[in-house]
Amino acid sequence: MMQNHKLVISYDGTDYHGWQSQPKKRTIQGLLEENLGKITQKKITVIGAGRTDAGVHAQGQVANFRANISLEEKELLRALNSLLPGDIKVISIEKTDLNFHARKMAKSKIYQYKIFNSSDIPPFLHRYVLYWPSRLNVKMMQKAALLFVREADFSAFSSNRLLYPVRKVFSSQIEKKGKELVYTIEANGFLRYMVRTIAGTLLEVGKDKLLPENVEKMFKEKKRSQAGPTAPAKGLCLMKVIY
Amino acid sequence: MMQNHKLVISYDGTDYHGWQSQPKKRTIQGLLEENLGKITQKKITVIGAGRTDAGVHAQGQVANFRANISLEEKELLRALNSLLPGDIKVISIEKTDLNFHARKMAKSKIYQYKIFNSSDIPPFLHRYVLYWPSRLNVKMMQKAALLFVREADFSAFSSNRLLYPVRKVFSSQIEKKGKELVYTIEANGFLRYMVRTIAGTLLEVGKDKLLPENVEKMFKEKKRSQAGPTAPAKGLCLMKVIY
Repeated sequence: MMQNHKLVISYDGTDYHGWQSQPKKRTIQGLLEENLGKITQKKITVIGAGRTDAGVHAQGQVANFRANISLEEKELLRALNSLLPGDIKVISIEKTDLNFHARKMAKSKIYQYKIFNSSDIPPFLHRYVLYWPSRLNVKMMQKAALLFVREADFSAFSSNRLLYPVRKVFSSQIEKKGKELVYTIEANGFLRYMVRTIAGTLLEVGKDKLLPENVEKMFKEKKRSQAGPTAPAKGLCLMKVIY
Repeated sequence: MMQNHKLVISYDGTDYHGWQSQPKKRTIQGLLEENLGKITQKKITVIGAGRTDAGVHAQGQVANFRANISLEEKELLRALNSLLPGDIKVISIEKTDLNFHARKMAKSKIYQYKIFNSSDIPPFLHRYVLYWPSRLNVKMMQKAALLFVREADFSAFSSNRLLYPVRKVFSSQIEKKGKELVYTIEANGFLRYMVRTIAGTLLEVGKDKLLPENVEKMFKEKKRSQAGPTAPAKGLCLMKVIY
C-alpha cells in the first residue's frame, strides 16, 4: 500500500551543492533519494520544505516521500542513517497523511544567520558562522532587523525576479549570545538568497554604512543593487518548518 | 635581536595531514611556517609540542619559533590569523625565554578521546567524535581506564618500536557527559598512536570483548597484537601542554 512518510533532517551543508538534486553533484536530496532507493529497491522522490543553497546547513529540514515500503519506520530510519555520511542525519521518520506535501503545506520556516563577532573564534566553529571580528553597531542592527517584519515585495533582497515576490515575515530579530550575533527570521516563504541578503544588509548597518532609513527605501524602490551584499552561505541554517 | 616566541594553537585537524611538515602536503606546521615566512620575510622553523597525526585536533597545541621580528606580538597574532585558514587559530603569541623548546620542555600533555554513544548524533559533531551508537559497558571501561595510570613500557599500545618505550601516565579516566564518553589521559609523553590504541582497547572492553585483566597481560607481554584496534583519528584532541 502506498504511504506517505515525513522526515526531519539535519545536515552540515559545507560539502554539498545544496538541497536540490543536480546531475553529478553531491546534494542532500540526491543522497537521500539514492540511499532510500538502495533500501527499498524503488525509485524514490523526496520533496523538501526548503531548497537550501550550497553550503547552507539545516537543523530541522522537513521532507516527505511516497512509497510502498515493508520496513517499519524505525528500521527504515536506522538503515537510512547507516548508509548516509556523517554530515547528514535523519532525525525522525513517521507515516503521515497521503496528501502531506513538505513544501506546499509549510505555513512558515525559521532560519538563523550566525555572526561570530570576536577575534577569538574557535576553529571548530568556522564552518557554521560568519567570522566578523571587527566592531559592529549591534543596537542599530537590532533596530534595522525589526523593519523586516512585514508583508511586502522582497525583490530588493533577492537575486531572482519572481512574478509574485510578496512574502510575509512574522519575526526578524538579532540576539547577542556571548560572542555570537544570532539573527532569526520566520516567514511564510523566502525568495532566493533572501535571508543572506538581509543578513548582508544588516551587516552594512552594523558597519555604519547603512541606516535603518535605507531599509525603508529598499522596500520602496525594490532594487537589488541598494541592499547589502549576499552574506556567505556558511552562517545560515534552516532551523524549523512549521505546518 | 633574536627572540623566542611561544604560540598556543587550536585546530580542526580533519583536512590536514597532521602537524608535521611534509613535502607537498597540507600540514599545520607547514601552514604556520609558510605564513610566518610571508609576514616576516624570513625562513621560520616552528617547533610543536605534540606531533599530532592526520585528522587529530588540538585545542591547546603549543609551539615556539625563534626569529628577529619587528612586529609586536599582538600585530603578529592578528596578521598570522588573517592569513591562516579558518580551521587553524593561533590563540596567543608571547615572547619567551630563548631556551624554551615547546617539545623538549613539556612536562606533560593532556589528550582527550571522545565517543558519541547514542544514535542521535548531530551532523555538526561528526568530525570531532567517534560515533558509536551501540551499548557500551561504561563501568567496565572506566575500571579499565584507571589501569593505564603507571610508569611502564607502552609498546603494546604503539605501532612503533622505540629504544625507550617507557612513559609515565599521570591520569587516565572516562567521564560520561550526556551522550558522550570523554576519555582523558595525561602523560609525560606518548608513543605513536598510543592514545588511539588505548581508546580502541577501552572500546573492546566496552563491547565486553576484553576484560581489565587483559590490559594487565598486554603490559606484561608488550605485543601490539593483543591490544585493541587503533581508534579513528577524528575522536582525538590535544587539549593542553604543561611546562
